[in-house]
Amino acid sequence: MPVYKAPVADTMFVLKDVLGYERYSNLAGFSDASIDLVEAILAEGAKLAENVMFPLNQVGDQQGCTRHADGSVTVPDGFKEAYDAYCEGGWLGLAFDPDYGGQGLPYVLHTAVGEYMSSANMALMMYPGLTQGAIAAIHTHASPEQKQTFLPKMMEGRWTGTMNLTEPHCGTDLGLLRTRAVPQADGSFKISGQKIFISAGEHPMSENIIHLVLARIEGAPEGVKGISLFIVPKFIPDADGNPGARNGVSCGSIEHKMGIHGNSTCVMNYDEATGWLVGQENSGLKAMFVMMNEARLGVGLQGLSVSEVAYQNAVNYAKDRIQGRALTGPKAPDKKADPIIVHPDVRRTLMTIRAFNEAGRAFVLWTALKSDIAHRSEDAAERQTADDLLSLVTPIVKGVLTDKGFDHAVMAQQMYGGHGYIEEWGMSQYVRDARIAMIYEGANGIQALDLVGRKLAQNGGRAVMAMFKEIEEFCALHRENEKLAFFTKHLKKGLGDLQASTMWFMQNAMAKPDNAGAGSTDYMHLFGLVTLGYMWALQAKAAHEALDGGAANAAFYENKLVTARFFMERLMPETVLRRTRIETGADSMMALAADAF
Amino acid sequence: MPVYKAPVADTMFVLKDVLGYERYSNLAGFSDASIDLVEAILAEGAKLAENVMFPLNQVGDQQGCTRHADGSVTVPDGFKEAYDAYCEGGWLGLAFDPDYGGQGLPYVLHTAVGEYMSSANMALMMYPGLTQGAIAAIHTHASPEQKQTFLPKMMEGRWTGTMNLTEPHCGTDLGLLRTRAVPQADGSFKISGQKIFISAGEHPMSENIIHLVLARIEGAPEGVKGISLFIVPKFIPDADGNPGARNGVSCGSIEHKMGIHGNSTCVMNYDEATGWLVGQENSGLKAMFVMMNEARLGVGLQGLSVSEVAYQNAVNYAKDRIQGRALTGPKAPDKKADPIIVHPDVRRTLMTIRAFNEAGRAFVLWTALKSDIAHRSEDAAERQTADDLLSLVTPIVKGVLTDKGFDHAVMAQQMYGGHGYIEEWGMSQYVRDARIAMIYEGANGIQALDLVGRKLAQNGGRAVMAMFKEIEEFCALHRENEKLAFFTKHLKKGLGDLQASTMWFMQNAMAKPDNAGAGSTDYMHLFGLVTLGYMWALQAKAAHEALDGGAANAAFYENKLVTARFFMERLMPETVLRRTRIETGADSMMALAADAF
Repeated sequence: MPVYKAPVADTMFVLKDVLGYERYSNLAGFSDASIDLVEAILAEGAKLAENVMFPLNQVGDQQGCTRHADGSVTVPDGFKEAYDAYCEGGWLGLAFDPDYGGQGLPYVLHTAVGEYMSSANMALMMYPGLTQGAIAAIHTHASPEQKQTFLPKMMEGRWTGTMNLTEPHCGTDLGLLRTRAVPQADGSFKISGQKIFISAGEHPMSENIIHLVLARIEGAPEGVKGISLFIVPKFIPDADGNPGARNGVSCGSIEHKMGIHGNSTCVMNYDEATGWLVGQENSGLKAMFVMMNEARLGVGLQGLSVSEVAYQNAVNYAKDRIQGRALTGPKAPDKKADPIIVHPDVRRTLMTIRAFNEAGRAFVLWTALKSDIAHRSEDAAERQTADDLLSLVTPIVKGVLTDKGFDHAVMAQQMYGGHGYIEEWGMSQYVRDARIAMIYEGANGIQALDLVGRKLAQNGGRAVMAMFKEIEEFCALHRENEKLAFFTKHLKKGLGDLQASTMWFMQNAMAKPDNAGAGSTDYMHLFGLVTLGYMWALQAKAAHEALDGGAANAAFYENKLVTARFFMERLMPETVLRRTRIETGADSMMALAADAF
Repeated sequence: MPVYKAPVADTMFVLKDVLGYERYSNLAGFSDASIDLVEAILAEGAKLAENVMFPLNQVGDQQGCTRHADGSVTVPDGFKEAYDAYCEGGWLGLAFDPDYGGQGLPYVLHTAVGEYMSSANMALMMYPGLTQGAIAAIHTHASPEQKQTFLPKMMEGRWTGTMNLTEPHCGTDLGLLRTRAVPQADGSFKISGQKIFISAGEHPMSENIIHLVLARIEGAPEGVKGISLFIVPKFIPDADGNPGARNGVSCGSIEHKMGIHGNSTCVMNYDEATGWLVGQENSGLKAMFVMMNEARLGVGLQGLSVSEVAYQNAVNYAKDRIQGRALTGPKAPDKKADPIIVHPDVRRTLMTIRAFNEAGRAFVLWTALKSDIAHRSEDAAERQTADDLLSLVTPIVKGVLTDKGFDHAVMAQQMYGGHGYIEEWGMSQYVRDARIAMIYEGANGIQALDLVGRKLAQNGGRAVMAMFKEIEEFCALHRENEKLAFFTKHLKKGLGDLQASTMWFMQNAMAKPDNAGAGSTDYMHLFGLVTLGYMWALQAKAAHEALDGGAANAAFYENKLVTARFFMERLMPETVLRRTRIETGADSMMALAADAF
């Protein structure tokens, strides 16, 4: 049977020792959450994830969702009750605006708990996850009346949200979308068209479903400049704000997917459904991007989450399964064979995943803290820098953590030998579930293009220079520290490859844009390696300080130093390969005629 | 709908231009298969694969196999008829001994056709595939009477075969196996025990199923030295050699797997089943390894096969799907967007798979030709060298082609965006099917250990030195050839990393064996890169010669040179990273206590 235990101690290490959580008590909401309270909240979240969400994970995969003849959709057994428990615990609105019923606690805390929930049950957590994205978009762009109507019920979880972008003929290129909006005399619109891949599009878990829909108002300009965002509720709120008349939106079918079976992925048909414009006409894409960016961090977190739960199970199996003897002689002479964790190739696998997970956790929390600063600091310059970095790393969090998360689910499955391929053991589900995270919310190739084609050059490269500066300053500050020399040496080397590659783009991609596209995925992963390396350097510093201070749990900090060393020696050198590929450019890649393929 | 077209022209290029097939007419069976006949046979095989096997691939995935209450197992619609067509065409016994009804044609030809068949329907091809492995083991180790009883019917495909190694508590470590064999007065044995993961263990496609079973004779030594191999037929042949009494072997259940749903993966229960010893008592493992080595090449081929069919579909989609505009301006101005094949990141994906597939095809055919030489040459020294190389590269074919085959199925799926995650589109099946090839016939970590721990040092390193010599001689021979300078430069660099890593093992792994285990997987992939790079250098040479000779289809050869360049520039530099990891050794990998995980 699969196992899962939320890594609360590691989260606390990152928040307290690595990120210096207590330094941020000046931010709104942080003073309400002392570090002790944070620990208590994490422990509560851990319980919910382990005891309520996780036991439904395989159930959800096996049962999946079913669409019935009347267009209704049912979800796996227990999902509704678990969702209710999540909402009743106040988890959905944890970090949202108290003016609309949220708790206003730090987003970094919400993110920390979110990891546990997605490890425990990724498919189930998509129902509140989409709702949180919809809340963010409405909160930023909707009118005060719209906020009052929708946000309190959504923050409670009584109403859920969806995001409707994709159509059969357009995903990445939203300029092609055809769903139309016809203005009505009362200020509303009639929305007609078909949207696909709508996660949580229809289900019985909430009283109402609030669809955020991109559509084109009659006569709007072609392309992305003619797209507007609409709120289309399943049930139109009545005068008292309760669900009223059924709207003209329905689920036409649900998809038969490789994984996340517990989530209903719907084809949604809009047939003159009543909708209300959010924000300005023809500026829908901007509004939707608030939701997208929020969602991209959430998807990156899913990559980490699945990597973590897959790792825990692989560890469990590797300690339990006996097979063969250690190369250095029997380690369990009383048994017929040694547990496979004695084998270096098994260790290589486990250490690779571990070194990623612990740095990945630090990276998402570092990013979430930037989001808190960007939204809550009273210092405009500090807000700006944090927002720059948040915007820069969002495609890296999404692209790198999901690519690696999937790879690690596969590696963890491999530990099980033939049993890994059998569904009952649970490892196949992690692989199948993790696979979608590389695709949705912008396929990872699009994340790489967003990074190279948009984020790098934005504001004259202000964000990337701030990022390089932060890492360089860390290395300079600890130049004299012999204990950190090993880590800063490798980090600086990786940073050097990243800086050289950045320079190469500046010199070679202006005149020949294909050179940027050709190196984009390698660049995203190169940036990811350096960022994760930076997280390891930060962790090594914190571990040394704890050990120097005589911390009680010395083994925890010593293990951190071993894992940091493993990352620097084994994983960080990939920066050289990535740089070599980038500097090769686009020529051989683009040389074949399309019909030669 | 998925598409597949067998790459006959590329196979012919490899056989004729790259490997010089016509030079081997002195080998038994080769003179019966002129290059023209080879082309005709490939074309026939292509038709069978494309028109009969491939249309059943998704059907097989969707329907799967079903075990009934009486222990019988049914297979997907059409599988039996397709299998019959394969057998009636003489494909099963194509390369086997004519004394027992085989056609005695080159194994390299069998391998070439085998690629097409596994691309078209991997799950279906496992039924004859297992039979071919069983034929090889019986042919090498069984008595003349046993051969006469079983081989003719198996080569016809009227009887199929299986291999029974794994038990619930042992896979890799066969020394732990518990299935027992009790000698009977008539010279037969009573076999009792349970075997799991038995592919094609029970099905209605043949008149009889011949199980090859590893078991321990009462009183035999512990560990692998006490294992014997037995033939256990489902129906005991009667005096006329026809299926007679039902034997005490039955299918207890079938597995619910991630993929290859069309193949019945059985738990087989042996309850005093009658079996006959194959070869000597207690030397069963050696006999089974004949089957294993044959099967490992077949599994490596599956990796290539799935990579090829996934690639073809990704190409098809990339040419058809319009989305966005090229970075260098519209390429299809008459359409609302360009086909996505204009985007460099899409090209990167397609070129990476293509560069692997075309080198992988050359590699498996190069290996199969070594097998032909090893078994059919009249020159003992030539046989020895070929057998050395075959033995050396078998774990590389298996481990590298299946790791990469899976990666490429995932990359091809990624081209489809959200549609890649939906089962109807077919890309998920390639990923799920390809996954098993990394696991069965010895998980890839075991292949790497086999290479580093056994194959490298065998006979004082004779095989690896022969391999290095072959590549060095190629580079030396073409030292003056300016057209090949680019390719030999990169190849020599990669070979240098491989030789340095080999030396590092010699210097660092004797005293500390964990250093070998720690670098084994990296070494296997390093060796794979150099071997595939060698295949590209050979192909570049053949392409230049064809162009210099004024070959009709110049574009084909020019495309070869572009793809060779892509491989050398983008993929070959990974040798540096692999070497760096190997030279890091085992320290940080092994430093944590087991309970720290």
